[in-house]
Amino acid sequence: MKLSQRITHLTGGGSDGWDVFYRARRMISEGHVISELTIGEHDIRTHPTILDAMDLSARQGNTGYAVVPGSDLLRDTVAARIQARTGQKTSRNNVLITPGGQSALFAAHVAVCDPGDVGLYLDPYYATYPGTIRGAGATARAIQTTAEDAFQPRAQQIDAAADGAVSLLINSPNNPTGVVYSRETLNGIAGVCRGRDLWLISDEVYDTQVWEGEHISPRTLPGMAERTLVVGSMSKSHAMTGSRCGWVVGPEEVIAHLINLATHTTYGVPGFIQDAASFALSAGHDLEEEIAAPFRRRRALAVEILATQNTIGLVPAQGAMYLMLDLRAAGLSGEAFANALLDTHAIAVMPGESFGAAAAGHVRVAMTIDDDRFAAALRTICNFAAALAESHAAE
Amino acid sequence: MKLSQRITHLTGGGSDGWDVFYRARRMISEGHVISELTIGEHDIRTHPTILDAMDLSARQGNTGYAVVPGSDLLRDTVAARIQARTGQKTSRNNVLITPGGQSALFAAHVAVCDPGDVGLYLDPYYATYPGTIRGAGATARAIQTTAEDAFQPRAQQIDAAADGAVSLLINSPNNPTGVVYSRETLNGIAGVCRGRDLWLISDEVYDTQVWEGEHISPRTLPGMAERTLVVGSMSKSHAMTGSRCGWVVGPEEVIAHLINLATHTTYGVPGFIQDAASFALSAGHDLEEEIAAPFRRRRALAVEILATQNTIGLVPAQGAMYLMLDLRAAGLSGEAFANALLDTHAIAVMPGESFGAAAAGHVRVAMTIDDDRFAAALRTICNFAAALAESHAAE
Repeated sequence: MKLSQRITHLTGGGSDGWDVFYRARRMISEGHVISELTIGEHDIRTHPTILDAMDLSARQGNTGYAVVPGSDLLRDTVAARIQARTGQKTSRNNVLITPGGQSALFAAHVAVCDPGDVGLYLDPYYATYPGTIRGAGATARAIQTTAEDAFQPRAQQIDAAADGAVSLLINSPNNPTGVVYSRETLNGIAGVCRGRDLWLISDEVYDTQVWEGEHISPRTLPGMAERTLVVGSMSKSHAMTGSRCGWVVGPEEVIAHLINLATHTTYGVPGFIQDAASFALSAGHDLEEEIAAPFRRRRALAVEILATQNTIGLVPAQGAMYLMLDLRAAGLSGEAFANALLDTHAIAVMPGESFGAAAAGHVRVAMTIDDDRFAAALRTICNFAAALAESHAAE
Repeated sequence: MKLSQRITHLTGGGSDGWDVFYRARRMISEGHVISELTIGEHDIRTHPTILDAMDLSARQGNTGYAVVPGSDLLRDTVAARIQARTGQKTSRNNVLITPGGQSALFAAHVAVCDPGDVGLYLDPYYATYPGTIRGAGATARAIQTTAEDAFQPRAQQIDAAADGAVSLLINSPNNPTGVVYSRETLNGIAGVCRGRDLWLISDEVYDTQVWEGEHISPRTLPGMAERTLVVGSMSKSHAMTGSRCGWVVGPEEVIAHLINLATHTTYGVPGFIQDAASFALSAGHDLEEEIAAPFRRRRALAVEILATQNTIGLVPAQGAMYLMLDLRAAGLSGEAFANALLDTHAIAVMPGESFGAAAAGHVRVAMTIDDDRFAAALRTICNFAAALAESHAAE
């Protein structure tokens, strides 16, 4: 039986460096002790007070169909939070609650892309980006950024790739690079979007994890509110990855259409999860900071440790829960380095290549194990890279 | 800013009879006492033992990313249940867990339909069907069934509509008609699917609500397992509408592709909800029967009440939580009848027209209020229809 082109061509062929990830999983399941630095997930669980709120809501009978756009309470809470954080006027009618950030990314692309349209994204990228664009029926076109630019995209490169494009997907703070886009970068991006009449889909799920500089939501830039769809989520900010609760924020007309799409694709988000999310957001900045704190500490540790050596280059670690390490001096691909590191030192990291060609020769380190083990693993990575570089230089 | 054709053309124009629904909602919110017989949702909440299982799972730390295909436990439990109920060999690899049945319907259509393909569905239909097919990028084509055939579809009519089609969507036990497709009907459907090389998407979310006859899953018919995608859900069988937990069951190859699609569209279902669902399913037949019992009782009451009059025809009420009443003898459209009923007797029912042209002159009554109020409302409907018919005959 024939399947759709769309589903059979969703992802490209090849391993793209994910072999090391699956190999680490297998080793763990076989009982090996692995320092697991691959996955963007907190080493804490959802806060018990949030689970209290969820259970209370369910016990009070909030177990029936929720209204598809999201509860008034959660939509209002998200709108108020975004307005408070960015200064941009935002109301309930600018917000659709979705079952997670990935669902929001998909819905945003379906809203603006028709089959044959081009959706732009930046390399390196979060693993699902090209498949999300293809899943919406569009053609996914990558724009390379470079380590030399600290992976900040350049406006003229986006402009040069924009023929036939209807949308540009960005992510700052960035997974996998840890870079936070500068005002200059975002002004450049906004200029191209206005000039080329592009929708900007801005994935801001790491907006509470900023270690250096400032997170600027491009929706706040001149002329951008009407062409920007912001994707947000409870996952990273509140350690609620498993609750699948996110949102799209955008112009009212788009949200109205997205509600209609949601009626036909997901039919809402559990009411008790929405109540848990409303509770968590209303707990305010302190809870968000508590959840971000371990990554802030580990990032400071990492900067200290990496300052003691010269082999590994650290891509400016400005935000998100990752470090991007430049290992090109060690003379191996990111994939070869990651495989060797797993085999010799039982440390699992993601090859840069698994996030696109632009991150070749790098590895991504998730700061998601406790501080002491994290610091020890990072020191081992440094020593391992130095030894490799030495033997590479001697070749 | 231009939106996609797909999202702006998802639903047709016109009210389609939903005005009465929104009017009833508004009246309720304004404090009017309305007998609410519009919505397919239980008048009980999710069972406390299921909420216990959910809370326990979350407290035990199951709040992180769940694996995208669904937990092994839930996939195994769903597979075993389907195998036990239908006799058709089913394993974990035939099952994708989805955030609700609607999400499963959408995914199934994306898997088999490309833009330009035709997806068939039967009129009358559950409200989201045509938009779900359009949302997948395909053209939705309705096939009329008739009250005279008790809304059982005829194979030759499906065959006559099948040019350019890749899929056929059916639903038995049926919403809105309450009809359960006979073996003859399903054999006819299977024959067309085999002859025309169609995928059959079989929405079986009401499979625990059968009052008369037998639910036959068409996946069990000869040559159908390889071309049938069954949609199921916890919503109706376990009063878990708000938990958004459903599944697609189909050939392993299709499920493998659907997992890839899920990675790019929803990224899994909360682990604590999956654990709640596994618990609920493992509670077995007794719990399902407890949840179906109120509808079984009310359906028996309805048959009794309707036997005392001659104006309203009852479409064979064989399954699901609805009655489809044929009011053509009263001389009004379903919409006019429903509006008048709401105005004069504060009873809200759905006009047949809101489910498609085939159900014109009918109304759908959801059996979702307590037995006494339900019986009283139905008696009122009978008297109201009789009075209308009398004055219609006198005209």
